[in-house]
Amino acid sequence: MWRPFFQPYHLIIVQDGDPSKTIKVPEGFDYELYNRNDINRILGPKASCISFKDSACRCFGYMVSKKKYIYTIDDDCFVAKDPSGKDINALEQHIKNLLCPSTPFFFNTLYDPYRDGADFVRGYPFSLREGVPTAVSHGLWLNIPDYDAPTQLVKPLERNTRYVDAVMSIPKGTLFPMCGMNLAFNRDLIGPAMYFGLMGDGQPIGRYDDMWAGWCTKVICDHLGLGVKTGLPYIYHSKASNPFVNLKKEYKGIYWQEELIPFFQSVSLPKECTTVQKCYIELSKQVKAKLGKVDEYFNKLADAMVTWIEAWDELNPSGEKSVAALPNGPAK
Amino acid sequence: MWRPFFQPYHLIIVQDGDPSKTIKVPEGFDYELYNRNDINRILGPKASCISFKDSACRCFGYMVSKKKYIYTIDDDCFVAKDPSGKDINALEQHIKNLLCPSTPFFFNTLYDPYRDGADFVRGYPFSLREGVPTAVSHGLWLNIPDYDAPTQLVKPLERNTRYVDAVMSIPKGTLFPMCGMNLAFNRDLIGPAMYFGLMGDGQPIGRYDDMWAGWCTKVICDHLGLGVKTGLPYIYHSKASNPFVNLKKEYKGIYWQEELIPFFQSVSLPKECTTVQKCYIELSKQVKAKLGKVDEYFNKLADAMVTWIEAWDELNPSGEKSVAALPNGPAK
Repeated sequence: MWRPFFQPYHLIIVQDGDPSKTIKVPEGFDYELYNRNDINRILGPKASCISFKDSACRCFGYMVSKKKYIYTIDDDCFVAKDPSGKDINALEQHIKNLLCPSTPFFFNTLYDPYRDGADFVRGYPFSLREGVPTAVSHGLWLNIPDYDAPTQLVKPLERNTRYVDAVMSIPKGTLFPMCGMNLAFNRDLIGPAMYFGLMGDGQPIGRYDDMWAGWCTKVICDHLGLGVKTGLPYIYHSKASNPFVNLKKEYKGIYWQEELIPFFQSVSLPKECTTVQKCYIELSKQVKAKLGKVDEYFNKLADAMVTWIEAWDELNPSGEKSVAALPNGPAK
Repeated sequence: MWRPFFQPYHLIIVQDGDPSKTIKVPEGFDYELYNRNDINRILGPKASCISFKDSACRCFGYMVSKKKYIYTIDDDCFVAKDPSGKDINALEQHIKNLLCPSTPFFFNTLYDPYRDGADFVRGYPFSLREGVPTAVSHGLWLNIPDYDAPTQLVKPLERNTRYVDAVMSIPKGTLFPMCGMNLAFNRDLIGPAMYFGLMGDGQPIGRYDDMWAGWCTKVICDHLGLGVKTGLPYIYHSKASNPFVNLKKEYKGIYWQEELIPFFQSVSLPKECTTVQKCYIELSKQVKAKLGKVDEYFNKLADAMVTWIEAWDELNPSGEKSVAALPNGPAK
């Protein structure tokens, strides 16, 4: 069902788990496929920063991509329908979101002011109406909501049936839970911050890969004056993962996040941090200094953050421009 | 058309303009009516803080009310219909919004987490899930959007037809343009901050009454740990006011607001300010100190802010509890 929507684009498939297994990609797609052997060969010792047996491994794809716009999606996500019954073209909406500005400095009560039929309302300062470039477009999910294990356990039958017809900027200084299930971003603007951390095999934690990336990304966007949007498009999320398995993966995250959120809320990046890479390295130092005492894991994670940036820069020599992922060819 | 929705409640009508004219209130409503003579008689010299020939005069009603929940509405607002064609009970939705908590410290991507069919998503810190008391419920408008005069002039035919089925907390630290057209608040929690300023007759500015109240209210809510919600309910806004008249009223506001927003964004209230009144008096001092140099008007406004609080406290001796405006009688 994704074929008409994905076929015009270039796919990068990151195969998790046993590399001797073969993934069969349907005919007619333009794709690259990487398994663990490929990751090890390409990154050498730096491959240690890429998680194994966890959805976090997807960020390897962000690193090797040469495209400007990235869309990432889970394997249990299907095409959703809008209230009129029409199939939603999620990529089209994400690209719209990324191509039009964000307004993180002041809240617009009619939501996205750039959308057809909407604008800035009375009392919105005119000097802020140009907005800022949008780095991230966070889409939502109909059917199975993205709940943590405790909420899944308490509300096993809850389904999200509410189609909220809105896209909005997440205000500067406000953190949000970024879900990697239906997510797009501008790789040129924010790519190196989209590291999904150390999760899964050999790590004490899982299911916090996208959250970690979201917190890092948001504080860096706020620092660099970039926008983050959430809302449309919806995808249809078909199957809830097992809440008992999830609880095991999440439980450290659930109490660690009580310290992580105040940490990210108080992060301040010096003005010398003028690139995403510089911001990210600085963030890794603050993670080590302030979260290392929460658990030894965060020292390891801070080191992996540095390795990630080194690997990113190795594969993406500076000055090399991305090409746009638009079906009609490069945008710049 | 409002009768079935308003009849169970107590109405306060503040008659603007010529007090010798008689307002005819339809049969069957429980109401108080105040004209300018009443305001002058009740407040004496302090009546100077209540605007004349401007919608700002409505805040006199907030001051004399003895109810816990206040709803304020413009005279060109009608009952809207939801997408299924059903009349929207705006008051019912506002009361729902005010009775359930706000979550201003972290963004929930599925909007109001307390609503039926929704919850906090994965990655939302558990320590923040109790939320904070909601002080303000800001409703929206179908048909004529609340635009400023320049936008009205540029887009005379724009109509808001998008029903966004969401209520959300405005994050801490984020300002918004609070419109008084369809607004509810908890008078016990935030009443004294709902001063609509000096507008209209004898003043250099109009149409910024609700904006001023919104900026003051938001910084005080942020300081006191109270919530502000926006979204549902919608009313139907029937007629756009004259954009040429509006431009005359607004034009000073349009450039003043470029200084007002940075001022309100940087306001910091000392921890000794533990009540709305103390916060408001402190705010009036900062207005005088920092905005007095923008225009002499702000010195006058700062004095009026103090007069407003004095009048409020005179009419509302401390310790006196409000009664709830619920149709079934007092809630406390």
